[in-house]
Amino acid sequence: MERLIIPQFSHKAAQAAQARLDSLAKVPGSLGALEDLVIRLAGITDKECPSFPKKAVVLFAADHDIALKGVSATGQEVTEIQVRNFCGGGGTINAFCRNMGASFTAVDVAMKRDVEIEGLVHRKVMYAARDFSEGPAMTREQAEACIQVGIDMARDQAAKGATLLAAGEMGIGNTSPSTAITAVLTGMSVEEATGIGSIIPPERLRMKAELIKKGIGLNRPDPADALDVLAKVGGPEIGAMAGFMLGGLSLRIPVIIDGFIAGAAAAIAVGLYPEARELLIGSHISYEPGHMALMKYVGAPTFYNLGMRLGEGTGAVLLFPHIDAAVRILTEMPTLKELDIVR
Amino acid sequence: MERLIIPQFSHKAAQAAQARLDSLAKVPGSLGALEDLVIRLAGITDKECPSFPKKAVVLFAADHDIALKGVSATGQEVTEIQVRNFCGGGGTINAFCRNMGASFTAVDVAMKRDVEIEGLVHRKVMYAARDFSEGPAMTREQAEACIQVGIDMARDQAAKGATLLAAGEMGIGNTSPSTAITAVLTGMSVEEATGIGSIIPPERLRMKAELIKKGIGLNRPDPADALDVLAKVGGPEIGAMAGFMLGGLSLRIPVIIDGFIAGAAAAIAVGLYPEARELLIGSHISYEPGHMALMKYVGAPTFYNLGMRLGEGTGAVLLFPHIDAAVRILTEMPTLKELDIVR
Repeated sequence: MERLIIPQFSHKAAQAAQARLDSLAKVPGSLGALEDLVIRLAGITDKECPSFPKKAVVLFAADHDIALKGVSATGQEVTEIQVRNFCGGGGTINAFCRNMGASFTAVDVAMKRDVEIEGLVHRKVMYAARDFSEGPAMTREQAEACIQVGIDMARDQAAKGATLLAAGEMGIGNTSPSTAITAVLTGMSVEEATGIGSIIPPERLRMKAELIKKGIGLNRPDPADALDVLAKVGGPEIGAMAGFMLGGLSLRIPVIIDGFIAGAAAAIAVGLYPEARELLIGSHISYEPGHMALMKYVGAPTFYNLGMRLGEGTGAVLLFPHIDAAVRILTEMPTLKELDIVR
Repeated sequence: MERLIIPQFSHKAAQAAQARLDSLAKVPGSLGALEDLVIRLAGITDKECPSFPKKAVVLFAADHDIALKGVSATGQEVTEIQVRNFCGGGGTINAFCRNMGASFTAVDVAMKRDVEIEGLVHRKVMYAARDFSEGPAMTREQAEACIQVGIDMARDQAAKGATLLAAGEMGIGNTSPSTAITAVLTGMSVEEATGIGSIIPPERLRMKAELIKKGIGLNRPDPADALDVLAKVGGPEIGAMAGFMLGGLSLRIPVIIDGFIAGAAAAIAVGLYPEARELLIGSHISYEPGHMALMKYVGAPTFYNLGMRLGEGTGAVLLFPHIDAAVRILTEMPTLKELDIVR
């Protein structure tokens, strides 16, 4: 796995954007969090007036053999069914991408079977993550390979002209490794961090938490080594999303974090590159109980609390039109001075 | 003022939309508040699969002579300056409307002076609301006329094909009547409900609260008579926005509530027509301290808490792309059954 250079947040561009916002013909600061967002985007892109004409969502798919223990509401076969559905344009994320004018790409990082579907990008690192309640989910080398898939996909999108990115995921069972990552990196207890995922009943919720605890106890991931955490109790698509986020940031392309799984990926990303902490942007706080702790750990602002829990990137793309609206005012409005408004 | 017929919420359409959402190939309920929004839109429009191709924002402008007492950060002349700016496309609301694909129209309900600006709709009821700390802001007849302006503008937009509406406002001083309406209708104390509006310092904030209290004490508006409240301590654009909301709902066109002033208008609307209570939709909770109480009084769900406090309709239009995204899935996704997904 290559070593990336994550550029520094540009305080100069951020200050210039702030000054510009303050000069516009409106009550200063009156767009609240949207103004903070503009300033962050300026700092990430190193542009006083950033704009994001081309948006792209890349979805990483993987299976998890911990799902064979019944931690999910549906069987493992649903990963493939949904990936086929996404490649045909029938997913919620596809409808949302069409609505927001974003492109969509699905990548096989670690699906259980080899599948031929038009449009699916083949970057398979393994055939499903191993059941981490029985041993490590991946080897360190496999975890590195997953991260590299994400880095490559971010570069690929950048080459196609993307100016704003979001990572989505599909992987039955993937709230379990995300919960393990939350517990190991943020210190939240497994009991508190374990949620209903795709809606499981209380007795399976308890079993899910027990398995996650067992997996952490057995594998003893080192919280100071994010790659170790990812390999032992994480998942392939989580690694790929982390790589995607870091790959985007290395090119000064903002990457929007979606829900719980994406939050776990962001935590791995900032574990690997602490300098990414000032550079990521959240979207919503999901229904999964561990998500807020992850977003605090990552240091990324969030904007919505809508009780969403679908994944796929659906929460992240909600921010796209709000970003566009917010950055537009930088270039489309006169100043208070130009209108002779005295404050 | 004519008597409108507000149609009933269609539980049949809402239930059909709910059943359809539950059948789709995703985790049931996983879009959280966005699914509740779809169901509410179905009930308002009486359509199982509502869609909103044509969106329109109408901004109502008025002056308030209470502003002459210094309750605002800027002088009264800024109402006209900004209305000219909006008609030229230079406002934040204009940039936001362009971004969301919504049309924009400004209406003079009670600006201080007669102004000729291209695109401004002339429906002037009076030359500024009177200072309600000295007597009633309007006569009952004037208040009725303002409401009628809003009703007419909603019909006008409907005739032009609008399928989704939001009301905006411009009026230096209009957080003062909105605060008075909040206190009279919700029972919140004036001290608690009074906010910094366009950012006034603490001593002026105290003076603003004193004037509002004085106005309520002097005018003694009857909380059981929303028209009395509007006339005595309200404002012309607040009445017009209330009429606009009711006019839209009478035609089963959803109207999205913006911030504090729009919230006060919505409270007047449901005061006049309690059957509108199930039918309005909020957008954000603003920085003004009285806004949440108003939205609870109105019974309208809200979706964002971004610390915004600009008005103009800027918060309401943020919901437009999220509405489009949410209703799209009703018609663009296969069902769990069609994909053979067993839950």
